[in-house]
Amino acid sequence: MTKFGPSDRRLEELMYDAAVSAMTDAGVDDVDGVVVGAMSPESFTGDSNISAFITDYLGLVPKPTLRIETASSTGAAIFDGAFFALASGFFKNILVLAGEKMTTLPTGAATKILSEVLSPQERRQGGTMPALAALVARAYMSAHGCGREALTRVAVKNHANAVKNPYAHFQYAVDAQRVETSKMISDPLRLYDCSPLSDGAAAIVMTTDKMPIRVAGIGHGTDYISLAQRDSLTSFSSTRVATQKAFKMAGIKPSKIDVAEIHDAFTPFEIIGCEDVGFYEPGTAWKHVLDGETEIAGPLPVNPSGGLKARGHPVGASGLAQIIEIVWQLRGNAGARQIDKRLRYGLTQSVGGLGTSNIVTILENVA
Amino acid sequence: MTKFGPSDRRLEELMYDAAVSAMTDAGVDDVDGVVVGAMSPESFTGDSNISAFITDYLGLVPKPTLRIETASSTGAAIFDGAFFALASGFFKNILVLAGEKMTTLPTGAATKILSEVLSPQERRQGGTMPALAALVARAYMSAHGCGREALTRVAVKNHANAVKNPYAHFQYAVDAQRVETSKMISDPLRLYDCSPLSDGAAAIVMTTDKMPIRVAGIGHGTDYISLAQRDSLTSFSSTRVATQKAFKMAGIKPSKIDVAEIHDAFTPFEIIGCEDVGFYEPGTAWKHVLDGETEIAGPLPVNPSGGLKARGHPVGASGLAQIIEIVWQLRGNAGARQIDKRLRYGLTQSVGGLGTSNIVTILENVA
Repeated sequence: MTKFGPSDRRLEELMYDAAVSAMTDAGVDDVDGVVVGAMSPESFTGDSNISAFITDYLGLVPKPTLRIETASSTGAAIFDGAFFALASGFFKNILVLAGEKMTTLPTGAATKILSEVLSPQERRQGGTMPALAALVARAYMSAHGCGREALTRVAVKNHANAVKNPYAHFQYAVDAQRVETSKMISDPLRLYDCSPLSDGAAAIVMTTDKMPIRVAGIGHGTDYISLAQRDSLTSFSSTRVATQKAFKMAGIKPSKIDVAEIHDAFTPFEIIGCEDVGFYEPGTAWKHVLDGETEIAGPLPVNPSGGLKARGHPVGASGLAQIIEIVWQLRGNAGARQIDKRLRYGLTQSVGGLGTSNIVTILENVA
Repeated sequence: MTKFGPSDRRLEELMYDAAVSAMTDAGVDDVDGVVVGAMSPESFTGDSNISAFITDYLGLVPKPTLRIETASSTGAAIFDGAFFALASGFFKNILVLAGEKMTTLPTGAATKILSEVLSPQERRQGGTMPALAALVARAYMSAHGCGREALTRVAVKNHANAVKNPYAHFQYAVDAQRVETSKMISDPLRLYDCSPLSDGAAAIVMTTDKMPIRVAGIGHGTDYISLAQRDSLTSFSSTRVATQKAFKMAGIKPSKIDVAEIHDAFTPFEIIGCEDVGFYEPGTAWKHVLDGETEIAGPLPVNPSGGLKARGHPVGASGLAQIIEIVWQLRGNAGARQIDKRLRYGLTQSVGGLGTSNIVTILENVA
């Protein structure tokens, strides 16, 4: 992957850098196809037909290519799509490649694009992504007695992890005071509760060959696009559906997971995500966070990369960057942020839109 | 599918109509997943996260869904993607569903969106889709001695076919004079050489069950996005690559094809497409068109539906509408435009961008 954060490189250049990295790592100079992920290049950079454009830019013409998109879980969806294509037996190697270039536009314009994933009804009422995420946060905090300090702890932890990640957008630590006095975005969410607008790309070569890391489980679920229609605001049903499928396919229980990357576009989403993937009972994850259990040195490290919060969130690429972090951790080459124990299973959870198209992926170290 | 052409229905309503039609035809009330195709809903209607939005609108939550996009071949790419997902053995039924709502915007704005598929370099020089298609037309006509009358004949034939198609955008015939005196769009392309901006949706339920119509072959190729980089303007190399793969998979020769839907976004593309899929030798298809061989009553009917030219071209949906027409023709329920002989193999060819991501699909009647 490329370093996430504002970049002078164009989207196709970022994707090129990530693809070259992945193909070099995999030791291949050719693939049978290219699956490209990007959420809104049409809106962010004015380029469409992005899969053909990128495949040409990579020098991979005449290989087949297509773009897959599921809003902010796009990076996970392309992995998903390529997995099934490989499982069909028609392909041997597929390059999955995701990126987003978000900092070309002013923040207001970029935020508007991000809010287009919400339901038309809720947008008409003025709903934006942070505003609806704030409703979710309030509902969770109020239902389960979770205070501001748990959100703060997620931000502090993820920034601390990102300090050790050369690919992270924010490579600096923040303390509780800095988080809690940062600008209010949408009460209770402050600036440091929100992931940033980033540029970046991520790539993986997937293969049917036997490899040290294998895909153990994949699950994908959807939910009503209007928050108003949902039974619960304190859990994403789409993650729960995805979790059930992924663990069924993997044939294991959540307790077997050694490390996870959870979609912390907003700090409360990490807490809710940890419950939805089955790590903790509903309403209790915030206590485990406060106990330090999800830190790199804890029993169940969550977002060792820094997460979307601090590694950054180029929307289309984040889901794949999560998977890359898990691959690195399982392989033992995550550098200064390497988890210091034997890791067998890693999990990623990616949220598309406001919990409308969520994907859970389980990887296993079989080396 | 829905009737193509300007509609008061919203994109999600058009997609709903097509999905209900397909599920009713298939006799299923549930599917394992939904693959949604749309080229630029973000730009045309301002909605993103389209796959989750549509899946919710269809009442199919919590089923997994994703959007696949390859510019104007999107409708074929979703069929392709769902085929491989089904071949993986992880799914039994998948709803593939494509649509585009293009007439909300003024023609100029819509045309600008369509031209975003071209290379950034050629766009900077003022390149638009009709302008570059005109270059292709000129190159072909000049290289092969093809005159204006062959283009006219394609338009006249496809309008005549569309008169018999209740789903067509233009249900009226045109004569040579009307075509040849129509407004010049980009010399030599006149108004009646160009497919229209349309609204519409198309859907198919694909299944691993044995069915009267099976997928015999699928092929997908790409080409350089800049026209300037290509070896030839008189043939789309991406179609040739796709053709070779599709026929190899089907294990047959082009001479076995009984009916075809060819991507006639511009009349010369039908002529070039017929050569690229192997029906006729390079430089000769225009003569076969003038001889009437591609008419419904001819030996190799091409675009019995009316094609993109007259059935209309809601960009994301056209590739799937082609496949639907072939299914109807092979089944024998194409109504007044039914080809009156035993049909075993049908072929579709879909062009993504200006020949950058082309897909060939071969269906077989095994009933």
